[in-house]
Amino acid sequence: MRDVAIIGIGQTKVDEHWDKSLRELAGYAALEAKAEAQVSQIDTIYVGNMMSGVANQQGQLGSMVADWIGQRFTDAVKIEAACSSGGAAFRMAYLAVASGQADIALAVGVEKMTDSPSNEITSALATAADADWEVDHGLSFVALNALIMKRYMHEYGWEGIDFAEFAINAHANAVQNPFARFRKAITEEQFIKSTMICDPINLMDASPIGDGAAAVILAPVEMLAPGSPRIVVAGSAAATDTIAVHSRAHPLWLSAAEKSSKAAYEQAGIAPEDIDVFEYHDAFTIMAALSLEASGFAEPGQGPALAKAGEIRIGGRIPVATRGGLKARGHPVGATGMYQIVEVVQQLRGQAVGTQVPDAEFGMTQNIGGSGSNIVTHILKREN
Amino acid sequence: MRDVAIIGIGQTKVDEHWDKSLRELAGYAALEAKAEAQVSQIDTIYVGNMMSGVANQQGQLGSMVADWIGQRFTDAVKIEAACSSGGAAFRMAYLAVASGQADIALAVGVEKMTDSPSNEITSALATAADADWEVDHGLSFVALNALIMKRYMHEYGWEGIDFAEFAINAHANAVQNPFARFRKAITEEQFIKSTMICDPINLMDASPIGDGAAAVILAPVEMLAPGSPRIVVAGSAAATDTIAVHSRAHPLWLSAAEKSSKAAYEQAGIAPEDIDVFEYHDAFTIMAALSLEASGFAEPGQGPALAKAGEIRIGGRIPVATRGGLKARGHPVGATGMYQIVEVVQQLRGQAVGTQVPDAEFGMTQNIGGSGSNIVTHILKREN
Repeated sequence: MRDVAIIGIGQTKVDEHWDKSLRELAGYAALEAKAEAQVSQIDTIYVGNMMSGVANQQGQLGSMVADWIGQRFTDAVKIEAACSSGGAAFRMAYLAVASGQADIALAVGVEKMTDSPSNEITSALATAADADWEVDHGLSFVALNALIMKRYMHEYGWEGIDFAEFAINAHANAVQNPFARFRKAITEEQFIKSTMICDPINLMDASPIGDGAAAVILAPVEMLAPGSPRIVVAGSAAATDTIAVHSRAHPLWLSAAEKSSKAAYEQAGIAPEDIDVFEYHDAFTIMAALSLEASGFAEPGQGPALAKAGEIRIGGRIPVATRGGLKARGHPVGATGMYQIVEVVQQLRGQAVGTQVPDAEFGMTQNIGGSGSNIVTHILKREN
Repeated sequence: MRDVAIIGIGQTKVDEHWDKSLRELAGYAALEAKAEAQVSQIDTIYVGNMMSGVANQQGQLGSMVADWIGQRFTDAVKIEAACSSGGAAFRMAYLAVASGQADIALAVGVEKMTDSPSNEITSALATAADADWEVDHGLSFVALNALIMKRYMHEYGWEGIDFAEFAINAHANAVQNPFARFRKAITEEQFIKSTMICDPINLMDASPIGDGAAAVILAPVEMLAPGSPRIVVAGSAAATDTIAVHSRAHPLWLSAAEKSSKAAYEQAGIAPEDIDVFEYHDAFTIMAALSLEASGFAEPGQGPALAKAGEIRIGGRIPVATRGGLKARGHPVGATGMYQIVEVVQQLRGQAVGTQVPDAEFGMTQNIGGSGSNIVTHILKREN
């Protein structure tokens, strides 16, 4: 397997892009990444997307993107793994280059959710849960997370307010990110007073949907100028779990996060202590806590304690959601994993204006599909 | 890249499986392939599926299959490329093993279409066309193929009856296949009298939908006993094209079929003359003709002539649809590409009871997404 570098990034703002089509969103992000990478020919394309069939009546996004960016005839497919589709697409592109199947690979995540009826989007989001054993009983995706959060609060003695810092940190960071959907800081009081959606999840525990796309170009390190500064993929791993939460032995433990992060640490030859910045999957604040715990940053049940101690801020032990996270940058579901990659590249390049983690060398992303049923973890590293 | 062999196959009958869930269909085919391969641990799983989000309200089929077949935690994703999803999933699994990323890979194609409302399925099938530039103008997927067929008849002077042999051959072969949906021979008279669906496409020009799953296990040849009989992947290639047919310079020429078949021939070191059996993508009889032409078996516009000369039958120049094809085995869209692979393996093993091509050495599959916008071609070879 060859060493692989990210040589170009691109992203659109997460927003209500009613004036841009699915192909335009994906295309703009891809063309930006391609221009930055200064490549003309792309060998293979992987598109991460969760719900274009339902939300946009469009399939085969591989062909759609290849054609629109001027790479007609290029081998291209769509990868779907619910909200981890973006991370999974990046992983496929990484493997294509690492294995020597392709030299120049494009990974792009795209989702367009805001001009479909909201009940359609709620149904589409529920496809991330188990249709037969969860959704058929009336559970929406937020309801499922509410049950997990409620059980977590019961087991570990936390209250709703103890999750506030996850949201406050994300919003504070998003203020500095021109690509974030909600560039507004929030206070603890606003968190407390926010509308209850599905007890105990309130509006500020939940990430917003959005339209957006993010993309990267990958190439083998051997093609780069020797000794040049670069961002390389130091670890890439994915693991699945049961889709239905009730089928797991430990519903408050993300086994797929533990397995994929351990594999990624091992590949990179590092430990959690070495990670300088972590773009985690804060679709709900409870997922932020569970991700920190399963990835080795906090003891089981102690994610909120880490946050309350100020350790998830820039300058803290493990800065997270540094460009706003899912909570405030926004969560265009199938694109989110690619936004995480792009944001970590910005951090490692020193381009994270306003929320730069000083001298960041190792950055990690963790993209969660369903309630932990598919988890993709990547470790990126700055070299030279 | 390592040489790769198919060491196990499995399939369910294509049918109206109202008593079996999506996970059961995929699981039964996968478990059968796994049992035949005599492996206990699978390293990676690729699931080909087009429309589970719309038709079954279920996403992340990778996790679903991994869990249900006892491979919980295994890296697994869904691959979508419209009706070529099955072939694309097989290609991903092949590349995973060829590159050394995985030793034992499972590819499974699954689709469950018959217990959803038919208007929902028609809409879902239309996602294979261009939502903005084709479907928005009122075109269904069959209407799009009818326009292509009409133009073809105009250009080359064929009439509807000239396409009959594609359907008659497929139905004759399906009689012998216990996994086929329609095991009934049809006559030319029945073809002529069949209901017009969308002029010039009648009921017998069109393949039926269905529920079904087909699966294979792949392994590196280096893991097999030296000199043992085996079916290897001799060529694997995919190419895209514009989704919208009107954007192509030549709407009657499948460029992606030409490109992917040429690449596959080159990898296998052979020419079209060397192919003993061809499982093509006869979603409509017009696609059968176009596929034969772009893959080098007939001159442009002469696909029907090849069929009328008896050359597509067992014993003819290029036997096609030997187990019934999409027309009579049935077309559970995202599973079809995997049925093609399984059927060619049966031919090369000498297991195609009733429709065996004598002493078949090279078999080809061609799986078409959309109206030619994503085409995946594979060449399998019998060794020892």
